Amino acid sequence: MSTSIRRHQTGDPQNLEERFATRAAGMQASEIRSLFAVASRPEIVSLAGGMPNLSALPMQMMASVVHDLIATNGAEALQYGSGQGHPKLREQICDVMALEGIRANPDDIIVTTGSQQALDLISRIFIDPGDVVLVEAPSYVGALGTFRQYEAQVVHVTMDDQGLVPEALRQAIISLRAARQKIKFLYLIPNYQNPTGVLLPADRRSEILEICQGERIFVVEDNPYGLLGFDKPSPNAMRAQDSENVIYLGSFSKTIAAGLRVGWALVPPSLKEKLVIASESSILCPSNFTQLTISSYLADQPWRDQIASFCELYKVRRDAMLESLQEHFPASATWTKPGGGFYVWVNLPPEIDTKLMVPKAIVAKVAYVPGTAFYADGFGTWAMRLSYCHPTPERIREGVKALSHVVKQEIERRGSGYSIGNK
Amino acid sequence: MSTSIRRHQTGDPQNLEERFATRAAGMQASEIRSLFAVASRPEIVSLAGGMPNLSALPMQMMASVVHDLIATNGAEALQYGSGQGHPKLREQICDVMALEGIRANPDDIIVTTGSQQALDLISRIFIDPGDVVLVEAPSYVGALGTFRQYEAQVVHVTMDDQGLVPEALRQAIISLRAARQKIKFLYLIPNYQNPTGVLLPADRRSEILEICQGERIFVVEDNPYGLLGFDKPSPNAMRAQDSENVIYLGSFSKTIAAGLRVGWALVPPSLKEKLVIASESSILCPSNFTQLTISSYLADQPWRDQIASFCELYKVRRDAMLESLQEHFPASATWTKPGGGFYVWVNLPPEIDTKLMVPKAIVAKVAYVPGTAFYADGFGTWAMRLSYCHPTPERIREGVKALSHVVKQEIERRGSGYSIGNK
Repeated sequence: MSTSIRRHQTGDPQNLEERFATRAAGMQASEIRSLFAVASRPEIVSLAGGMPNLSALPMQMMASVVHDLIATNGAEALQYGSGQGHPKLREQICDVMALEGIRANPDDIIVTTGSQQALDLISRIFIDPGDVVLVEAPSYVGALGTFRQYEAQVVHVTMDDQGLVPEALRQAIISLRAARQKIKFLYLIPNYQNPTGVLLPADRRSEILEICQGERIFVVEDNPYGLLGFDKPSPNAMRAQDSENVIYLGSFSKTIAAGLRVGWALVPPSLKEKLVIASESSILCPSNFTQLTISSYLADQPWRDQIASFCELYKVRRDAMLESLQEHFPASATWTKPGGGFYVWVNLPPEIDTKLMVPKAIVAKVAYVPGTAFYADGFGTWAMRLSYCHPTPERIREGVKALSHVVKQEIERRGSGYSIGNK
Repeated sequence: MSTSIRRHQTGDPQNLEERFATRAAGMQASEIRSLFAVASRPEIVSLAGGMPNLSALPMQMMASVVHDLIATNGAEALQYGSGQGHPKLREQICDVMALEGIRANPDDIIVTTGSQQALDLISRIFIDPGDVVLVEAPSYVGALGTFRQYEAQVVHVTMDDQGLVPEALRQAIISLRAARQKIKFLYLIPNYQNPTGVLLPADRRSEILEICQGERIFVVEDNPYGLLGFDKPSPNAMRAQDSENVIYLGSFSKTIAAGLRVGWALVPPSLKEKLVIASESSILCPSNFTQLTISSYLADQPWRDQIASFCELYKVRRDAMLESLQEHFPASATWTKPGGGFYVWVNLPPEIDTKLMVPKAIVAKVAYVPGTAFYADGFGTWAMRLSYCHPTPERIREGVKALSHVVKQEIERRGSGYSIGNK
């Protein structure tokens, strides 16, 4: 993390660098941005994005839902609403969270413009420049970007195939405390994590909670994929065990529709007022229209069945990806076997640089996200995230096969010493 | 503005004050918040809120618009979109701004979750703690709240019945520069200002622009009410004259529907990238669904006629308010005569404290916003903002009459010395 302002640059006739806030120095376009522009071309098989697959959503039904909402309740749906979010939707959100063992009071929920906004608001109330945020290694790129804007020091904690390693968390806290660092919260995605697809088992959840309670560190539990388990339900949410130290983030982006931008935070009562004030200052209020669209849908449609349809759709794609990885990828590669969600994390031999490999993959008509995007510290050069959520199973197989050729060529080239000039 | 952290307070068992960011100290519930809760009761005539009046919006037409949008383009409308905003809507926004003399490139527009989010993003890229933001005296309460969260030092510049006084701006800049303060931008609402309803004439617009250009101070031109002039079109936007120093904020909240939460910023090209990155970090992307709803509406419906209907509706209400103020309010009160927008600003004799008067008004079944809400420095105790946008003309007359009794009693009481114990 760099917080230095570069002043008096050439090519800055307005002397803008000097006029910006200090935090603006960190607002640089990421590598992933230009990648997505390329990956969205139709000839490319994109294993890069995390766009939900809407093909299972009955559009005529959704069209009726929004029509009837405006026809019968337009004066409310099209008006300003509460800064905290619509009271009826907040009650329904409690029912959704009950599926993962959470008992909540609607008054402790803040509806946000996607759960990204909740991340922003939590950062806003907690992070002073230099404060530490603990995250999984690797972690969600959008969260890292937000923490960076608030000038946090992001510290990654080791994961394995079972998610965050409690002992590594203990050690990280000890080191940071010894260095007199201020740790503000632990951010993690316990279910089908982005980017690894890994599930944190129940015993680790309890152990991590216990560590954070003892050290008075808030846990930010981000759970967009919890209801997208393919084979069995995910363990109870961490928030189900602890309503005092867990800040829980939920979203309808993956279970209903991302384009509505409706997420939420369920917070300890002591944090609510500041979060609502921060949200009002940020957007005044979330959209009544999109909130009430979700509310009508939840009230009148078989939403649990709809989520089951989504799971079916993603499971087929997950299988296609794992099978074709098995079939085509070299023996020196390893990957996660997600039980839900959108993503597979692939580890390649350490001499491979997946960022340098991107242009070659694009030429081969396939896109992925290089591992470095998910680390705040340049780590992850040998890894990549593959997402199976959006393409058809056939396209997934095609993309993985094309990518396997690129990977094999790269391994060969690196192995024969051609790489020296590139490093 | 107070940035001190109050540590180890009683009643803070979690020691939260110590765990929050410094900026969180300023996140306190405002007086206006509890007022709105009371003002929304049906028995109260609310002259407090700024809620647009949707009674002129044909709901069956809006219902068809959203139905057809999902039925024909649901896969896009319900999906994640661009962080900068939908390209088609950005083109249409250029057509809307052309009505106020602005020639813009869609690529310089960032679509936001209401223009409140644009205020937040601009604050984020410019304001370091202690930086100065210049605002009108009085100014929009929501902007003051946002500047406060970014720990700006808000400096009010004198207004008169013709808006911001250029000479006062000059003097303020001289004093602040002498004190080595960093001035980041001037925030103003040139058209039918919130809270005063005042219109800034064309010659002052030019003069203010010239001052800010010379001093290299960005102008943030907030223009939610520009198309709501009742008698004649408003002068060209300041942005029409200057595309390098003006950051222009627009909104569909008052011309179409606030519940969609669609606003925008039109910015100098040099600022665009940082604003888009800041917005992505804040909300990932604005809602495709609400953006495309606006886009369909603009493409297929007679939106200029619809705005004319809104103007008609508000003009009748403005007249009702001005007439009943004239009829009932005491001679010692003065008020603005807005040519558009939502608000009248009333000055009472200086011994009146409109904040202390609120409970008496509520008892008389009428609500307003006390003047202090629109100042960062406790000023405005003798003033109040009355909004005529939402109630019927009959209710407005009723409310103003009831309020006039409260005001007269208060003047009488203060004049006779009863006030001493309250101050």
